[in-house]
Amino acid sequence: MISVEEAQEAILSRIQPLGRTRVPIVEALGRVLAEDVRSPRDIPPWPNSAMDGYAVRAQDVAQASKERPATLRVVEEVRAGFEAKRALGPGEAIRIMTGAPIPRGADAVVLVEETEKAGRDEVRIFLAVPPGEAVRAAGEDVREGATVFSAGVRLNAAAVGMLANLGRPTVHVYQKPRVAILSTGDELLDLGETPKAGQIFNSNSYALAAQVIEAGGDPVPLGIARDNAEDLERHLREGLSADLVVTSGGVSVGDFDLVKGILGGLGSEMHFWRVRMKPGKPMAFGTLQGKPVFGLPGNPVSTMVSFELFVRPSLLKMQGWSRLFRSRVEARLLHPMRKSPERRHYVRSVAARREEEWTVQAVEAQGSNILHSMVRANALVVFPEFETKLEAGAKVQALLLEEGSALAAAPEQVTGAGALVSAR
Amino acid sequence: MISVEEAQEAILSRIQPLGRTRVPIVEALGRVLAEDVRSPRDIPPWPNSAMDGYAVRAQDVAQASKERPATLRVVEEVRAGFEAKRALGPGEAIRIMTGAPIPRGADAVVLVEETEKAGRDEVRIFLAVPPGEAVRAAGEDVREGATVFSAGVRLNAAAVGMLANLGRPTVHVYQKPRVAILSTGDELLDLGETPKAGQIFNSNSYALAAQVIEAGGDPVPLGIARDNAEDLERHLREGLSADLVVTSGGVSVGDFDLVKGILGGLGSEMHFWRVRMKPGKPMAFGTLQGKPVFGLPGNPVSTMVSFELFVRPSLLKMQGWSRLFRSRVEARLLHPMRKSPERRHYVRSVAARREEEWTVQAVEAQGSNILHSMVRANALVVFPEFETKLEAGAKVQALLLEEGSALAAAPEQVTGAGALVSAR
Repeated sequence: MISVEEAQEAILSRIQPLGRTRVPIVEALGRVLAEDVRSPRDIPPWPNSAMDGYAVRAQDVAQASKERPATLRVVEEVRAGFEAKRALGPGEAIRIMTGAPIPRGADAVVLVEETEKAGRDEVRIFLAVPPGEAVRAAGEDVREGATVFSAGVRLNAAAVGMLANLGRPTVHVYQKPRVAILSTGDELLDLGETPKAGQIFNSNSYALAAQVIEAGGDPVPLGIARDNAEDLERHLREGLSADLVVTSGGVSVGDFDLVKGILGGLGSEMHFWRVRMKPGKPMAFGTLQGKPVFGLPGNPVSTMVSFELFVRPSLLKMQGWSRLFRSRVEARLLHPMRKSPERRHYVRSVAARREEEWTVQAVEAQGSNILHSMVRANALVVFPEFETKLEAGAKVQALLLEEGSALAAAPEQVTGAGALVSAR
Repeated sequence: MISVEEAQEAILSRIQPLGRTRVPIVEALGRVLAEDVRSPRDIPPWPNSAMDGYAVRAQDVAQASKERPATLRVVEEVRAGFEAKRALGPGEAIRIMTGAPIPRGADAVVLVEETEKAGRDEVRIFLAVPPGEAVRAAGEDVREGATVFSAGVRLNAAAVGMLANLGRPTVHVYQKPRVAILSTGDELLDLGETPKAGQIFNSNSYALAAQVIEAGGDPVPLGIARDNAEDLERHLREGLSADLVVTSGGVSVGDFDLVKGILGGLGSEMHFWRVRMKPGKPMAFGTLQGKPVFGLPGNPVSTMVSFELFVRPSLLKMQGWSRLFRSRVEARLLHPMRKSPERRHYVRSVAARREEEWTVQAVEAQGSNILHSMVRANALVVFPEFETKLEAGAKVQALLLEEGSALAAAPEQVTGAGALVSAR
């Protein structure tokens, strides 16, 4: 058996970022930039007024006060979107609105609240202001030629706004991986069909599709392959048009487990592993015609946890992410736990935070077929390979599956939660 | 001036969840359920084998050991997806695969590793097992008739799998709000056009569209309205086909600020507020023909922070969320900060976590026109209304805008970060 880290390393060393694609900037939200972006001009492009008021020469109002206002001649009015037609001369003021370019000759703006109109074309200024007052300098946000974003950065909403600021309608980002999803098993039934004896609904394809979407990929459902070589091979070949293939079921030691054989038979390099973990353990990974192929175990929880640990980081790497793994916190365990040695357990748990402390509590049923345990969990507690017991109060590592829910939950909300529903 | 909390309360008391819509279960990922979901049958539907092995009567192997194996007659083989044709009699075993229904008459499964074939149709059993061994009980995951999910729950990937488990192809969730987005200003230019003197690109529409998407809504871009009554009114009326309208610009005291007048003029209840906050302050909110309308300030950072505090919680409430606000952590401030009293500042900051402690550091430029500050921030530090200084080391409240990035960053990665690019 190999460790989780050995499996992750073997997998990730064979995964490369996909190519880049040009998308409208709003579609680039949350994706990783695949080019350096420089600013074609200063932002703002010219000095402009931070306020509504009067553009003046600071020296003309240097003596102004409430008691002895300076009186200036208002020669023009300029609002955002336009330029003053003339330069400001001595003793002159130009009415100016927020965002409008500072007129030539002016070097400061006096807030409208510090002024008073005097007759038709004069204004009284009640406040002395230094040069630069209420003036936003050209290039104050971004300088012409500056590298605003480097390739490899993930774009947030403000970054989308910044790209618009630069006048960019589109930008290069890494492609989203298309992920072919195949469930295997004679017992599986498609949704909408009526179950016969011995049949259960195919749930893995749907849970995996949801996990693919959460990891930024596009799921390509291949349906259900029956436990025979022809059907399996046909479906797998279909999957090779995607960027990555995930199968569930058919990798354990049973007589009817064919996926392993087919994967090996189609050529290329395949590894069939027993990974020192629970849930999960049997897994196949390799590349078929250059495409990564994951053979995950078939029990619903094993499938999801294996996806979490091995497929999700691969999908993030394909999209150019540098942070491939979940946030990990140190948390206080609320109850004792026991297990046998050798395999590391990933215990489905509810993590919660109060002030600066994190707590974790396992959800009740931990069988690898008990999907409702995964519904309720927002974290996986790492119960180390060679440990057999953890006492109540022990400090443990927890991988946060839902950072928001874990940060928001107070421990009293989750302690003793017995319902099936998620506490979010 | 009113407080942020007063504005939030006034707004949220006027926002109701939208109606429900039926979607395929994979599309329900991350959305809030708008119906109670009960299980139509036990999951699993029948007792089944947890392992590959032999289904037996426990009493037939009660004396079995490595030295004195029990020998049973193998009468059938059953794999997942099928049912045994006959009931198990005394002295008999049925070869069984993981997931296959337990044959009538059998009450335990012996792992294949604990057995050995003996001739054509016999098996030697080396281990005594109790009744129920390696048998998954019917209804062990979910009982028939149980409420698996209640309306109001947000669906995670495992929940999507669980719905498939129940045989549900579709489910009712709350509708996504369609959000009309309008930028106002004569100075604004559409992307792809060539700037003339005094013109800047419309960035607010794009940043707002990205914020709408992050909050689960569908943006409906209305483009740019010029600073005249006709153009504004025409665009606003167009926006009323959406579920909510957001405008940016045109709500401050300037002579050319018309949005306020138009909104008031179109009838219905409108509030024009000065909110005790910075960035932001002037804001309009009301309902026009039953649709919530937000008039946000025009400076890019003010627009985004106002969206964050007022529009985002409204969109989440429309989608049935119960947790409307960002996660808040107590963090240690890495440097002193000063401000004038009266308005609460939301200081764009980088939050990071080391072990159990959070730290925050303001990004350099805090002008409300400096969009790159918002690009770098992953948190907003709350600098209370009536405080004027915070010392280095002070404990402050921080709203996490990007929980993942804040949880992942170590303080040394962000201290002194001077580049424009986000540290994620």
